[in-house]
Amino acid sequence: MDKIRIAIAGYGNLGKGAECAVSKCPDMQLVTLFSRRQPDSIKTVTGVPVHSMADIEKFKDSIDVVINCGGSATDLPEQTPMMAEYFNVIDSFDTHARIPEHFQAVDSVARKSGKVAIISVGWDPGLFSMNRLISQAVLPDGKDYTFWGKGVSQGHSDAIRRIKGVKDARQYTVPVQEALERVRNGENPELTTRQKHTRECFVVPEEGADLEYIQNTIKSMPNYFADYDTTVTFISEEELRKNHSGIPHGGKVIRSGASGFENKNRHLIEFSLTLDSNPEFTSGVLTAYARAAYRLNKEGVCGCKTCFDIAPSYLHPLSPDMQRATLL
Amino acid sequence: MDKIRIAIAGYGNLGKGAECAVSKCPDMQLVTLFSRRQPDSIKTVTGVPVHSMADIEKFKDSIDVVINCGGSATDLPEQTPMMAEYFNVIDSFDTHARIPEHFQAVDSVARKSGKVAIISVGWDPGLFSMNRLISQAVLPDGKDYTFWGKGVSQGHSDAIRRIKGVKDARQYTVPVQEALERVRNGENPELTTRQKHTRECFVVPEEGADLEYIQNTIKSMPNYFADYDTTVTFISEEELRKNHSGIPHGGKVIRSGASGFENKNRHLIEFSLTLDSNPEFTSGVLTAYARAAYRLNKEGVCGCKTCFDIAPSYLHPLSPDMQRATLL
Repeated sequence: MDKIRIAIAGYGNLGKGAECAVSKCPDMQLVTLFSRRQPDSIKTVTGVPVHSMADIEKFKDSIDVVINCGGSATDLPEQTPMMAEYFNVIDSFDTHARIPEHFQAVDSVARKSGKVAIISVGWDPGLFSMNRLISQAVLPDGKDYTFWGKGVSQGHSDAIRRIKGVKDARQYTVPVQEALERVRNGENPELTTRQKHTRECFVVPEEGADLEYIQNTIKSMPNYFADYDTTVTFISEEELRKNHSGIPHGGKVIRSGASGFENKNRHLIEFSLTLDSNPEFTSGVLTAYARAAYRLNKEGVCGCKTCFDIAPSYLHPLSPDMQRATLL
Repeated sequence: MDKIRIAIAGYGNLGKGAECAVSKCPDMQLVTLFSRRQPDSIKTVTGVPVHSMADIEKFKDSIDVVINCGGSATDLPEQTPMMAEYFNVIDSFDTHARIPEHFQAVDSVARKSGKVAIISVGWDPGLFSMNRLISQAVLPDGKDYTFWGKGVSQGHSDAIRRIKGVKDARQYTVPVQEALERVRNGENPELTTRQKHTRECFVVPEEGADLEYIQNTIKSMPNYFADYDTTVTFISEEELRKNHSGIPHGGKVIRSGASGFENKNRHLIEFSLTLDSNPEFTSGVLTAYARAAYRLNKEGVCGCKTCFDIAPSYLHPLSPDMQRATLL
């Protein structure tokens, strides 16, 4: 069997996760890594060769799928359309509000080049989105809830680090157990932002920093913290390293609804993730969708897709016959 | 917009659920019900007309999709291939071991007739199967667990009713909490049948029946009860009606696995259903897949499919654009 020839673009946490995730797929072969950094400055775990992103076009005949592990803010909107000109490509674009725009940009390139591009792959957007969609479809009379955490929010941690006097910080998003219980009880409550999640901040201050200033600046930061019950705990650098070095995350998508002409019977659909490493898990999802992109393109499909457009069968290494015999 | 013209075949619990589920879909119209009983002996809740199953062919130009609500043992293997000659058709065939055989029989008819048939739709097989497949694909290094219940097992209740001296019975399958907790803790235990589920039987004996004989016969019944810790409780007919008249069910599909080159990071994926009414929920799933069959057939697709072959987008009433804008 020909192995699917994979390249990874970008070697941050997500790219490193993808390097390992691809190694766990016997039907895939990691051909190369692309980076904007100096290739010889990068040492990969598996020893896979590194090439400059500027040379990516040269690989158009030796790579089937690029897993683009760049950031959503500036990398992916520029890189994914560029890559779709030469390769099937997967990205994890997660700026929800800008997905339609990114989709259009990628779609117009991929339709011309005859490649498959699957965007916004991961768990939210991604597996969570699929569960929202499917749950609404099978239980039209109901209400959706998404809870995130407990987990590290990278963006919120960064926002704290930009405050004067902060040396390092880690922010956790934590679902409010009481709200979760009310949803699970079928109460279908209306929940405000504050009622659904709290935010826990662990901050390493610089020597002599104004702790009260830091605490007030965090708690009153609009969009990030002002709408939440936020706790700030000052800790040492050593404690941060020891107790907060992981990147756990997760969450739950719940649909609570009813059936019957009098809505007498209640139903609860819950999809839940508990992840030790957000980037490693996400890269596993990207890798499964890389398999799907390759297979779809072999069938002559092209254009931009999301997880909504991919039949589950394409994700799994077994043949459809074997899937039906062993998994259905 | 043209509404999808639906027919329901069979008017047991599942067919009644489907009648209601279709009424909750503004893009669908329930045209007729087919039954093997005398049509004028059936009074439908919505007043939808009833026709004899023998006349089904006459409706080939006025119905888009038939939701076949027959039983898996004898109805579906015979009826679904017959229906696929004239209609797109959905069924909930749930005899796992015989799915490949049923698939082949339906596929050969549907390919010839140019229709789409989606078989084994529901929650297990169905949504649970999808979660098993997707979880394996995104987390290849791990272990699967399926727990069922707490819920009524129709087949096991029937088996008890066949015992001499039993007037009526209700059997619940109950997951063992301790086993569930071990799985959730990431222990990846090997669990025997007995360690995963217990079976609770509520039995109404006939007057003067031999209770010890009934209890022993249940507990020693091979396949059904002998491999489980089974409890038998004798109750009155009134108590059965009052406390055990519902058909609740549900369960959990869990994948517990690890990522990273040293499998250091652990992940848990859990999909859980808690259902007041098994047939009403299942009919909601059937209805969503009826929408998918209609849309796929409009695109020129034909043949037999399972939930593994259906991209989620086809299930939801919104357009793909709107799905991306609101659900991704």
